[in-house]
Amino acid sequence: MPEFNAPLRDMRFVLHEVFQGPALWARLPALAASVDADTADAILEEAAKITGQLIAPLNRSGDEEGVHFAQGRVTTAQGFVQAWQTYREGGWVGLAGNPEYGGLGMPKMLAVQFEEMLYAANCSFSLYSALSAGCCLAIDAHASDALKATYLPALYSGQWAGTMCLTEPHAGTDLGIIRSKAEPKADGSYRVSGTKIFITGGDQDLTENIVHLVLAKLPDAPAGPKGISLFLVPKRLVGEDGSLGETNAVSCGSIEHKMGIKASATCVMNFDGAVGYLVGEPNRGLAAMFTMMNYERLSIGIQGIGCAEASYQNAARYARDRLQSRAATGPLGSDKVADPIIVHADVRRMLLSMRALTEGGRAFATYVGLQLDIAKYAEQPEEREAAQRLVALLTPVAKAFFTDMGLESCVLGQQVFGGHGYIREWGQEQLVRDVRIAQIYEGTNGIQALDLLGRKVVADGGQSLALFANEIRSFCETRPPLCEPLLHALAQLESVSQWVREQATGDANAVGAASVEYLHLFGYVAYAYMWSRMAATARERREQEPAFYEAKLATATFYVERLLPRVLSLQASIRAGSAPLYQLPAELF
Amino acid sequence: MPEFNAPLRDMRFVLHEVFQGPALWARLPALAASVDADTADAILEEAAKITGQLIAPLNRSGDEEGVHFAQGRVTTAQGFVQAWQTYREGGWVGLAGNPEYGGLGMPKMLAVQFEEMLYAANCSFSLYSALSAGCCLAIDAHASDALKATYLPALYSGQWAGTMCLTEPHAGTDLGIIRSKAEPKADGSYRVSGTKIFITGGDQDLTENIVHLVLAKLPDAPAGPKGISLFLVPKRLVGEDGSLGETNAVSCGSIEHKMGIKASATCVMNFDGAVGYLVGEPNRGLAAMFTMMNYERLSIGIQGIGCAEASYQNAARYARDRLQSRAATGPLGSDKVADPIIVHADVRRMLLSMRALTEGGRAFATYVGLQLDIAKYAEQPEEREAAQRLVALLTPVAKAFFTDMGLESCVLGQQVFGGHGYIREWGQEQLVRDVRIAQIYEGTNGIQALDLLGRKVVADGGQSLALFANEIRSFCETRPPLCEPLLHALAQLESVSQWVREQATGDANAVGAASVEYLHLFGYVAYAYMWSRMAATARERREQEPAFYEAKLATATFYVERLLPRVLSLQASIRAGSAPLYQLPAELF
Repeated sequence: MPEFNAPLRDMRFVLHEVFQGPALWARLPALAASVDADTADAILEEAAKITGQLIAPLNRSGDEEGVHFAQGRVTTAQGFVQAWQTYREGGWVGLAGNPEYGGLGMPKMLAVQFEEMLYAANCSFSLYSALSAGCCLAIDAHASDALKATYLPALYSGQWAGTMCLTEPHAGTDLGIIRSKAEPKADGSYRVSGTKIFITGGDQDLTENIVHLVLAKLPDAPAGPKGISLFLVPKRLVGEDGSLGETNAVSCGSIEHKMGIKASATCVMNFDGAVGYLVGEPNRGLAAMFTMMNYERLSIGIQGIGCAEASYQNAARYARDRLQSRAATGPLGSDKVADPIIVHADVRRMLLSMRALTEGGRAFATYVGLQLDIAKYAEQPEEREAAQRLVALLTPVAKAFFTDMGLESCVLGQQVFGGHGYIREWGQEQLVRDVRIAQIYEGTNGIQALDLLGRKVVADGGQSLALFANEIRSFCETRPPLCEPLLHALAQLESVSQWVREQATGDANAVGAASVEYLHLFGYVAYAYMWSRMAATARERREQEPAFYEAKLATATFYVERLLPRVLSLQASIRAGSAPLYQLPAELF
Repeated sequence: MPEFNAPLRDMRFVLHEVFQGPALWARLPALAASVDADTADAILEEAAKITGQLIAPLNRSGDEEGVHFAQGRVTTAQGFVQAWQTYREGGWVGLAGNPEYGGLGMPKMLAVQFEEMLYAANCSFSLYSALSAGCCLAIDAHASDALKATYLPALYSGQWAGTMCLTEPHAGTDLGIIRSKAEPKADGSYRVSGTKIFITGGDQDLTENIVHLVLAKLPDAPAGPKGISLFLVPKRLVGEDGSLGETNAVSCGSIEHKMGIKASATCVMNFDGAVGYLVGEPNRGLAAMFTMMNYERLSIGIQGIGCAEASYQNAARYARDRLQSRAATGPLGSDKVADPIIVHADVRRMLLSMRALTEGGRAFATYVGLQLDIAKYAEQPEEREAAQRLVALLTPVAKAFFTDMGLESCVLGQQVFGGHGYIREWGQEQLVRDVRIAQIYEGTNGIQALDLLGRKVVADGGQSLALFANEIRSFCETRPPLCEPLLHALAQLESVSQWVREQATGDANAVGAASVEYLHLFGYVAYAYMWSRMAATARERREQEPAFYEAKLATATFYVERLLPRVLSLQASIRAGSAPLYQLPAELF
């Protein structure tokens, strides 16, 4: 049975040492009173306990059992109800929530590390919490004070849970064509009707109520994405005193059978004239969703890092224990029939690739979390605005690159086990199945890439990219380790960005043709920046804790020498342009 | 429900047009009498029927049901027994088998295309046949005439099936440390004892007998890989008249629960003094296994192509049907709410990547099959020897590159479906789960890479590589399409090969550090050669069937412009050498 130990030392390294979270919090009034280094450490230690001891042990049993659906009700796997109770009592759902309504108001850069642990321990369990937290974000940002007061406290406390109801059978990426409708009533409420699919936690037995956020169209709505509104539709109606009333006209029609995240209920939800309340302005539902997307996409991206970390821990343990063949340089010791496989160069390549990508991802997630905190809490508007620009630019990279590298890392971790990696009992194959969804949901990684290159680079005229590049260049003025390859890769990214922007003026397909490779190119450069920052910190402190910091420097070197060269191919592929994609007519595929 | 249609036109293209199989068969006496273009086409058409109509329909139900194990017996999923009956009556197990014992003696370059269809239709079903065919190969090459006469006819006819019993719980890659024992008896037979794991088809209810080929050690055997012998151990003993006698001391202890290939029984097999017969020389068991490895590894590699083809067919169909968002160049037609997703550049990138890799793989498999045929059947020893050299060089590339590209293609095919790709009913997620094992078994892809670079390039002094390079250069003298990028990539491969050979003289880890990236580099160059050959044929014939041949030329261009640039990164990573892999001590992982 695999076990999960939260990488607390590594997390403190990025949170406190590399990005100096405590110093930031001290200068932001909204955070100064509630969090400092000790609080953050206490939270992470508590989080390590609950994820490692309570939630991780349900990961494999949940995968084996799945969720049950009978008479329109979902029952979660054994142990989930009790675990949720303990989890919610710890206040974890509202960790970064608005304190005015019972959230703990912790910084996002801390919350991302908690999220990583949660996904590493148990993706299915995590999703019930993640969707609820996302639902809270949207309500907090857009709903009326009355709705906030009625719904947020019970959501933050985990007594209730939330969902996002966007997708319909014919409308996934293209939400402009949804058919769900909302009819206004005289009392100011609405009656919502339609079918939504792929609804995570659409039904479950963990909470006494479920709050659905539903995209639907008003009767007079314009066609397309500008005619979509957002509604709050509770499973059970809520009285003015907060008491639970009768059941609303919302039902779960069936659950999906999936490749992984089997203990997460993925529901078809039917709304049959259900009572709902408008959230935000009419016809501005998509915009309301998007204001919270940056938080949510970052969180879902972290599923990639969490799974990769869990896979790495298992694989490293196995590689130290499993004896097979002799080291190429000669037997390590003759008391065993073979050497541990960690002596073999290719096993080390796999483990170091996982390490470099996972730690690079963790640093980048924390960095984006830091920008989200600045964007939300900084006093100066210019500082908030600059951070907001970085967030908008870097979020699609985080979501897609974390999860693409997450799949690669989980596949590598499975490969380290040889045949045993394919067998269920070792847990490595579940991680591959569970991480795979993260490349698909919350906007496929292809959609993230279009958002990055189309909106955030080309339409933006390259201004946000320049902001990021300037930050990297000014960091490099201190001549940190690895700055030469970092600056070289950055220059290549800028040159390719410029090239695509030129192409895009005459070729409507230029962005789509380049987008996925471009996002990867961006991701490798961003990780090189992270590794350069980590290496700079490690070099300063190496005397204090040599083994720990030398390991950081060694992994940084590996990243730059063995993984960063991937930018060479990505650029070359991008520069082939869109023409090779359009030579073949659709009917000949 | 996905359906599978064998790509017969594409198969004929490589078999007849690009590699001119019929002309080769006509000049090889052993093949001339039994096969010509018409026979080959008839076989492929029959194969398309049986795989598409009989075997593919059992793919998803087999995955859902899995195999059953009770009272020491395995029961296969519903429909497998009847399908096997029809399959075996068609003579498919012995398609390339020795005609002296009832095989059909068909060329390998034809058999590989049949194997591709079989894997595309149903990986689990295929394995019962593939292992049996591999078992026959070893018996045919190494067993006594008496054993051949007793066992081969019933194996070729599929009345019985065969297995390979190599792995033990502590010994996978490192077979030198196996513990199974064989004790000689006065009558010339042996008593075999030990536990073997991961035995595909170790037990099943398809055939009335099962013939196990078991690696074990004789009492006086030297330690390590040179002390291993090969034994034939039937499940039921066979009388001199071929009649089935009593049950041997072989039993299935349990079956594994796996990520995929769930309808294939993966067994723990216990041998408790089972009656066995020596195959080949004492202590030469590993060598005996290796003489058949080139056939077997090529076949397992083809699982990667088959799964990728099935995934491509589903994804292309979905991409033409699924309406979502508008083309970047403007709506295709206003009668629908959205355009088919095949208009989007990134969807085309995914589909074309799958096409280019799958068709490149099919051509390369056929080419390696052709070399196997020349190595086996050519009259001139020099011709056989040269082909044998190419086979030895190219087989590890085929096995590992087909299956690595197979996973990539299946993941892409799943991604085309968005959320629907993660749901079981569409079949795409099963292909990802099923193809994944092919990177692991029959020697992990890491082991293939070590075999390629360590044995076939470095230890070989680069002679076999020179043979392959010369062939490519002389083909390029005709100035075929794409020869410039092909020759450029080839020169890079040669230069990197030389670099690694030099490193290896002073660094025992140099080969292991470079091996996996090297194999990929080799694979991309080999596919570039294949695409250049396919493009040359297509250009000659384009007037005859314009749509078909233009599609080949378009896919060739896509391959060279968008995928071949991957060689740039691979080289750069290789040239980083082994140092970055050994900076971190084992205990710090």
